[in-house]
Amino acid sequence: MLVLVNGEMQSQVSVLDRGLQYGDGVFETVLFKSNQPVLMTFHLQRLALGAQRLSIPIPKDFDAQLERAIALRKEQVASGDSDSFICKIILTRGTGGRGYRPVELSSPTLIISFHGVPEYPITFKSQGIETKICSHRLSENPVTAGIKHLNRLDQIIASAELGELPEGVMCDQKGNVVEGTRSNILVFSESKIYTPLLNNSGVDGCLRRFLIEKSEIGALGVEIIESIIPIDKLRQADGIAYINSVFGLWPVVNIADRTFTITPESKLISRYLYQELGM
Amino acid sequence: MLVLVNGEMQSQVSVLDRGLQYGDGVFETVLFKSNQPVLMTFHLQRLALGAQRLSIPIPKDFDAQLERAIALRKEQVASGDSDSFICKIILTRGTGGRGYRPVELSSPTLIISFHGVPEYPITFKSQGIETKICSHRLSENPVTAGIKHLNRLDQIIASAELGELPEGVMCDQKGNVVEGTRSNILVFSESKIYTPLLNNSGVDGCLRRFLIEKSEIGALGVEIIESIIPIDKLRQADGIAYINSVFGLWPVVNIADRTFTITPESKLISRYLYQELGM
Repeated sequence: MLVLVNGEMQSQVSVLDRGLQYGDGVFETVLFKSNQPVLMTFHLQRLALGAQRLSIPIPKDFDAQLERAIALRKEQVASGDSDSFICKIILTRGTGGRGYRPVELSSPTLIISFHGVPEYPITFKSQGIETKICSHRLSENPVTAGIKHLNRLDQIIASAELGELPEGVMCDQKGNVVEGTRSNILVFSESKIYTPLLNNSGVDGCLRRFLIEKSEIGALGVEIIESIIPIDKLRQADGIAYINSVFGLWPVVNIADRTFTITPESKLISRYLYQELGM
Repeated sequence: MLVLVNGEMQSQVSVLDRGLQYGDGVFETVLFKSNQPVLMTFHLQRLALGAQRLSIPIPKDFDAQLERAIALRKEQVASGDSDSFICKIILTRGTGGRGYRPVELSSPTLIISFHGVPEYPITFKSQGIETKICSHRLSENPVTAGIKHLNRLDQIIASAELGELPEGVMCDQKGNVVEGTRSNILVFSESKIYTPLLNNSGVDGCLRRFLIEKSEIGALGVEIIESIIPIDKLRQADGIAYINSVFGLWPVVNIADRTFTITPESKLISRYLYQELGM
C-alpha cells in the first residue's frame, strides 16, 4: 500500500499523534477514475472548512505533497495497477499540547494513502438496495456538523447494525432523518427532491454539495430542497436514494416493510451523474 | 518515552489503525504515586465498559501486557525516574473492516505509555482556581455517554477557549451543566452536594465514581446526589469544585463575575481524598 506521512513514504504515525489520541483531525476519501480525481475541488473545500473549524493549520506544502503522492500512485498505475483508485487524505493536528488543549503553533500531520475502489454489485445502482433505519442515532452539535472530522463512533456503531445490508438511514436525537452511515440521502416526494438539513449533525457530502450547486444553477433540471425530514416523511416518500462521492447514487428498494420505486427524478440524477462525473 | 504497542516496545502505529482513522477506541489515564496505581479498579472497570459498549474485544493477555509495561516502568524508576507517573492505556479496534463497518473478529491494538505527572500550582488545591463557562457545548448521545472513548473533539474545542485558565465548565446542547473539559463537577448548595447526571453526555470519571460509591456506603460522611443541573443552579451555588483522578479536587474561586467560597463540604472531600488516596 502506498502511504505518505508528511511527504515521507511510511505507513506509521506516532502514538502521540492527536489523530489517534483524540480523533483530532479531518479526512477526505477521493475517487480517481482513469487517473483523474472526481469532485476534488469539493473535497479540498470541505477539508479546508473542517481544518478552519477545528483551527488546524493546513501545511504550506499541502498541494505539493498531494501532487507528489498522486504522481507516485500514477507510477504504480503505469506499472500495471488500476487507474481507478481511492486517495484518502487525513489531516491531524499532529503531536503536542497539554492533554486535550491544543498548542497555538502545532505542526499538523498529513497522511495520504491509496486504496482500491470498493467493488459493489452493479445492481445496487440499477435496481436499488435493501436498507433499514439504524437504531443508533447521531450525536448533535452545530460546531462539528457538516465537516468530515475523525470522530466517527456514531457511524461505526450504526454500521455494525447493518449486517449484510449495504447502507442504512441514520436519524438525529430528535428522530429526524440526517444521512446514511457513509452517504447522504435524497427523498423523492410528489415530484420534488429533498435532502436533510445538516445544521446539527451529519457530513455535508461532496456529491450532495455538487448536486445542490447544479440544482441551484438549473443545470440539473430539478431542484434539491434542503429541509428537516421527519422519519414519517421518509416512510411516506415515493422514493429514496443514497448518494456519495465514491459509489454515486443507490436507489432504495425498501426500508423494513415499506417498498419504494425508483422515481423519474432518481433516474434523471443517475443519468446526470453518469454524464457529468462518469459515475 | 516508554511505549508498548501490543506488548512490543515501539512508539508508532499503522496509519490504518481505526483509532486514528475514526477515533474507534477507548482510553484511560492512570495516576501512579510511589509506584502504586490510584483508582486502578475504577479505570479498568470503565475501560471494560467502554470496550463492551463499542464491541471491542479486550486482548486475552491484557493483564499480562499491563503488568509487564508497569514492570518496565518500575525499572526506569529504579534507575532514577520519578515514582509518580501517568500510565495511559489506549485500546483501539485495530486495523481492518470495510470503512466504518467493523469486522466481527478484529484484532485490537493495546497501547500503553508512560508520562510525567502534570505539575500544577499547589494553590489550585488549597485556594481554588479561576474558571469560566465554555461556549462550546457537548454533543449528546446516550450510547457513548459516560465512557472514555477516543472521540474528543468537543473537549478539544472547549479547551481551546480556556486561554490561561486551568479548567472550564461544559454544558450540553440544552444548556445544562455536564462536566469540566477534563474533569467532573461537584456543586455545593445549601449543605448538599450535587454532580451532573451523565445519561446523555460527559465522561463518568473514576474519582466521581469513587466518591459516589463512598457516599452511598456512608464512608464519605456526606451524600453526593446525581441530578440535572441547569446553568442557573451552578451560578447560584455556594461552591463548585472540579474533580479528576489525576489532580484530585480543585475548588472554584469564580466563574466570570460570580465568586464562590470553598464550602465545608468541599474541604471535607479534599481531606478525605488526601487520607484515602494520598491526592
